[in-house]
Amino acid sequence: DQALHNQGGKKRLVLGMVGLPARGKTYMAKKVARYLNWLGYRTEVFNIGEMRREKVGAEKSSNFFDPDNKQAAAIREKLAIDTLENLSKFLANGGQVAIYDGTNSTVSRRRNVKEFLKQQASQRDLYIELTWIESVCRDQSIVDANIRGHKLFSPDYANFKPEDAVRDFKKRIAMYQKVYETVSTEDGSFIKIVDCGRQCIAHGVHGYLAGRITFFLMNLRVNKEPIFLARHGECVDNVAGRIGGDSPLTERGKQFAKNLSDFIGKQEDVNQKRLSIWTSTLKRTSQTVQYFKSDEVVQWRALVEIQVGICDSMTYEELKTTYPDAFKERQKNKLEYRYPQGESYLDVITRLEPVIFELERLKGPVLVVGHRAVLRCLYGYFTGESLERIPRLDVPLHAVLKLVPKAYGCDVTTYPLGPDVAMDASFDHKLT
Amino acid sequence: DQALHNQGGKKRLVLGMVGLPARGKTYMAKKVARYLNWLGYRTEVFNIGEMRREKVGAEKSSNFFDPDNKQAAAIREKLAIDTLENLSKFLANGGQVAIYDGTNSTVSRRRNVKEFLKQQASQRDLYIELTWIESVCRDQSIVDANIRGHKLFSPDYANFKPEDAVRDFKKRIAMYQKVYETVSTEDGSFIKIVDCGRQCIAHGVHGYLAGRITFFLMNLRVNKEPIFLARHGECVDNVAGRIGGDSPLTERGKQFAKNLSDFIGKQEDVNQKRLSIWTSTLKRTSQTVQYFKSDEVVQWRALVEIQVGICDSMTYEELKTTYPDAFKERQKNKLEYRYPQGESYLDVITRLEPVIFELERLKGPVLVVGHRAVLRCLYGYFTGESLERIPRLDVPLHAVLKLVPKAYGCDVTTYPLGPDVAMDASFDHKLT
Ligand SMILES: Nc1ncnc2c1ncn2[C@@H]1O[C@H](COP(=O)(O)OP(=O)(O)OP(=O)(O)O)[C@@H](O)[C@H]1O
Ligand SMILES: Nc1ncnc2c1ncn2[C@@H]1O[C@H](COP(=O)(O)OP(=O)(O)OP(=O)(O)O)[C@@H](O)[C@H]1O
Ligand SMILES: [Mg+2]
Ligand SMILES: [Mg+2]
Repeated sequence: DQALHNQGGKKRLVLGMVGLPARGKTYMAKKVARYLNWLGYRTEVFNIGEMRREKVGAEKSSNFFDPDNKQAAAIREKLAIDTLENLSKFLANGGQVAIYDGTNSTVSRRRNVKEFLKQQASQRDLYIELTWIESVCRDQSIVDANIRGHKLFSPDYANFKPEDAVRDFKKRIAMYQKVYETVSTEDGSFIKIVDCGRQCIAHGVHGYLAGRITFFLMNLRVNKEPIFLARHGECVDNVAGRIGGDSPLTERGKQFAKNLSDFIGKQEDVNQKRLSIWTSTLKRTSQTVQYFKSDEVVQWRALVEIQVGICDSMTYEELKTTYPDAFKERQKNKLEYRYPQGESYLDVITRLEPVIFELERLKGPVLVVGHRAVLRCLYGYFTGESLERIPRLDVPLHAVLKLVPKAYGCDVTTYPLGPDVAMDASFDHKLT
Repeated sequence: DQALHNQGGKKRLVLGMVGLPARGKTYMAKKVARYLNWLGYRTEVFNIGEMRREKVGAEKSSNFFDPDNKQAAAIREKLAIDTLENLSKFLANGGQVAIYDGTNSTVSRRRNVKEFLKQQASQRDLYIELTWIESVCRDQSIVDANIRGHKLFSPDYANFKPEDAVRDFKKRIAMYQKVYETVSTEDGSFIKIVDCGRQCIAHGVHGYLAGRITFFLMNLRVNKEPIFLARHGECVDNVAGRIGGDSPLTERGKQFAKNLSDFIGKQEDVNQKRLSIWTSTLKRTSQTVQYFKSDEVVQWRALVEIQVGICDSMTYEELKTTYPDAFKERQKNKLEYRYPQGESYLDVITRLEPVIFELERLKGPVLVVGHRAVLRCLYGYFTGESLERIPRLDVPLHAVLKLVPKAYGCDVTTYPLGPDVAMDASFDHKLT
């Protein structure tokens, strides 16, 4: 959060989405918001379409979006302003990054937004920076796929037959296209994403945070394939109740390794040939994937378990008696607590960033075999859990979490695979 | 260094510079190399021009660069290959990122480079990724300034009169322009920097590291103005020999604050109106800039001193007796040693990244008032010191380091300003 700490904490960033319908604006807006919140920036998305559905109801046919329909245009203008007002309130109340999600398809509309924010900034004594994020598709097949795959399920088309919905939606796009003006240098600072990130143009993007967002968007792909998260099988240290270390699997742990490969092998929505398998550099994760073909396995140092520093290889009891204060302090603030010479959850989040980028860029299904703390952080990122809840998320041993991307989020299912773990191994719950 | 740890440590990155003469290729190449080395990636620049000066001598007139001069063209082709061979050896011997610095001005030349690297990769069993970095100047005034400000001092023109050098260099540019082909999608992955970073286009840039380099280049400006680095004045804890803490200045410390503002005020190359002043969020740095106008001061949390965790407020002697092992371990590896619940120098480098980006983006002179460890890291970045030496760099109390950008690096002068510090305050040397 360094990046917004200048100017006495008065700096704010507004990202304005630009693009014709079905260009992934809302998708990107929500992804960016989830990413920034995960990094610790207070971020929210303000969507004009949602405001419209709330205020004037869903199911407006395409003529509502005709620029020549003066009455509708006035209503849409009002909705855009109402949304901006909410957005400004959020910034005034300590929000750090606000994403303004709409088509914002003309230079004059964008100029109005800029003016509005300028006024708000001076009224509320804030420094507000504005950067546009435009999604452009030169490849029409992407747009067609987006309409069929996604827009049909929009509340706007709840009572439409599919063909009618597609037809109407294409008309809606045509309405916008009549007046659409792509973002250019006269709009100020912008990031242009072409064909889902194949190309990315950043113009006048100053400021650390805006640069980092560009970097994130450059790496964002649309992947509909599942992500499997699993902890390593039960290991010797689990049974002994020791944290840290690099111990091998127990017999039960090996059985889980077997169950895991059977389970993944039977997944109908997984193309086994394209499956990536990632582990940490610790023995217990490599052993857990021993029944997969080894040339598909990638080891990540960034996936090693939270470093517990001088507490490494201690048991629960030893830790409590040797460092009673450390133990108590950690319970109070698990997110920020840093083990003596080790790491905090926030440290883990920082080092997981390259893993997140790689996951966002991936095209096929992936199985990540890791450790509890690192998986909690990954899980939290994908489900949009608040930072505070991340250190308490439930990621049991001998189970797989299946994350399937859906619309703007993902569905999660937990599959317990067995075998049951030793008594003491389930103990670690209270600890790491 | 996570980004290159996949594929069993066999992943390498080659950055190929592209651009007409005097477009800042060497400048950017060296900056990127310094940045990556500072982050811990083994990086080196391989410059075709240097190879030329070494093998065939400097002072070639522009006709050597005429594409119609067949004999010279063959020599230049050979030099390009020799340089590539050095580069590949470096990668084979554990180098992680190699920067190939030349004009690389045609599609066919770039295709040859790609082919060459492909062969090397298969011969040496490596995964080599190639990304082009092109510098384009639409603004001719930038190029003119570059020629006058810089190229006149090139060894190529050691015995030329300035006017003759400019004339010859412009001819050399014209020679290249005859055949120059800008980088496009057919060249593969590229990063295009337009007009010193006003715009930046990244095409097909995959991979975490390449993305991060794009991010860095986006923020790189050309600043010829000085950077002043100073530690806070002597504080109460300095005198008591305590580390960490947030104590106020002593009388001597306040005197330094006065001396500092006098010193900066008298600098002839500093436009006082444009001077930025940065401090950490700790009292002793704010107090050190108390004689400057306060509305110019920006506080950075990223500039606070290395966190010493549970050792906070201990004296040298207390630390040695309470944690003798920690003390010894730190002396052995000051770079990586992490204070219990605190930070290592590597941690500090990571959190300083936004500061570096801001410094690279800055247009005017800046005074940074910080603490020893953070200043060592900043100093090391600008001077290109090796990571290992950073924790031992000399940054004394009551002095200012003046860094003046020169060609591809910077000149450093240390100005002791006084007053002399208390005996015990000079003691901290052995410690933090
Ligand atoms: N950069 C992108 N370019 C094109 N399509 C994308 C991109 N990012 C995501 N998508 C895809 O676009 C689909 C539909 O996206 P989304 O609903 O976000 O569009 P939208 O631009 O917000 O449309 P609308 O204007 O109707 O709100 C997503 O499900 C996703 O598959
Ligand atoms: N992105 C940039 N665009 C234009 N000029 C730049 C850029 N970055 C740095 N410069 C300026 O260009 C000057 C000259 O640059 P440099 O020697 O690096 O050029 P070059 O492209 O390597 O030329 P040559 O082809 O002769 O080796 C630098 O001193 C710097 O001031
Ligand atoms: Mg939308
Ligand atoms: Mg050069």
